[in-house]
Amino acid sequence: MEKVKTDANAFVYPMPMVLAGAIVDDKPNFMAVGWVARVNFNPPMIGISLGKTHYTNGGIHQTQAFSVNVPGMELIEKVDYCGLVTGKTADKSQIFDVFFGELRNAPMIRECPLCMECKLVQTVDMPSNTLFIGQIMGAYTEERYLTDGKLDILKINPFTLTMPDNQYWAVGRNAGKAWGIGKNWKTLKR
Amino acid sequence: MEKVKTDANAFVYPMPMVLAGAIVDDKPNFMAVGWVARVNFNPPMIGISLGKTHYTNGGIHQTQAFSVNVPGMELIEKVDYCGLVTGKTADKSQIFDVFFGELRNAPMIRECPLCMECKLVQTVDMPSNTLFIGQIMGAYTEERYLTDGKLDILKINPFTLTMPDNQYWAVGRNAGKAWGIGKNWKTLKR
Repeated sequence: MEKVKTDANAFVYPMPMVLAGAIVDDKPNFMAVGWVARVNFNPPMIGISLGKTHYTNGGIHQTQAFSVNVPGMELIEKVDYCGLVTGKTADKSQIFDVFFGELRNAPMIRECPLCMECKLVQTVDMPSNTLFIGQIMGAYTEERYLTDGKLDILKINPFTLTMPDNQYWAVGRNAGKAWGIGKNWKTLKR
Repeated sequence: MEKVKTDANAFVYPMPMVLAGAIVDDKPNFMAVGWVARVNFNPPMIGISLGKTHYTNGGIHQTQAFSVNVPGMELIEKVDYCGLVTGKTADKSQIFDVFFGELRNAPMIRECPLCMECKLVQTVDMPSNTLFIGQIMGAYTEERYLTDGKLDILKINPFTLTMPDNQYWAVGRNAGKAWGIGKNWKTLKR
């Protein structure tokens, strides 16, 4: 079918939805982030890209640390709230039960099925955003989210984000084995 | 409940699954990528992080361009195949119907519901990966994927990835309005 041009401000479908945590003005603060991805395999690093005007940025710059927390569906209203209000005017330190790992300045959320504490290793300055790249120094979960020792997405029950329609989406059915279901596909050998 | 430490090589749940395209050795090549995120709002930029040994990397460095293509579920076997074989030994230029937009060296996939052509603006060198940051110069879809002029994830029907269990997942039910469902949540004013 015919391709049509759409807004170049296009997004990934769907985006993961996490809460980024940092100590800002001596208090834990959390913001909702959909622009997040792993960026290095070994050592494990993760990147979050935050608009430059966000309250969280100053805390990450100052403490050189942040956390990435993957929430389950039961937290969706709290997560959305964290995306609606800024730490400049709202104290978000009491919304969750906060804990710390090895880093003393990367606040994590006990209610979240997966929490990663990150040491800032690089910032990439871009026109309207700052990309914070952190090394994952520790990752925390609970036995109830594991199956055969591995994190189980159906137990985590996370949700995803689409923009610009601004909707959240549950995870659906299993769709097959990665690095597996394509094995029947053949192509020309060079 | 009690938190337990898990492998620090932890991942985002779930990751988007896209095909990154580039011209390598004068031919279109496509690789499966789950480490992808928007990284700048204005101008729109997207980042993909590729292990340094991938065949695609040389092409992006040489042409200073790449594409990001969001596949629908009906392409899942072909996408997985692109993740199983390397362009070093397999010619992946014939798997899809390739088209070009304004850039003449960012091959896009006609079968994909959303395609973004990107001009390389920055590379971030990391220990085992290279993060390629591109400005989205054009985005392409079809009328059949739009609802009220916006991309509709249920029509796109993409899939997501989890690691390290290496599974694909469909998108599930709508879970609410982002920047909306948290409005009832109150907190302490500063």
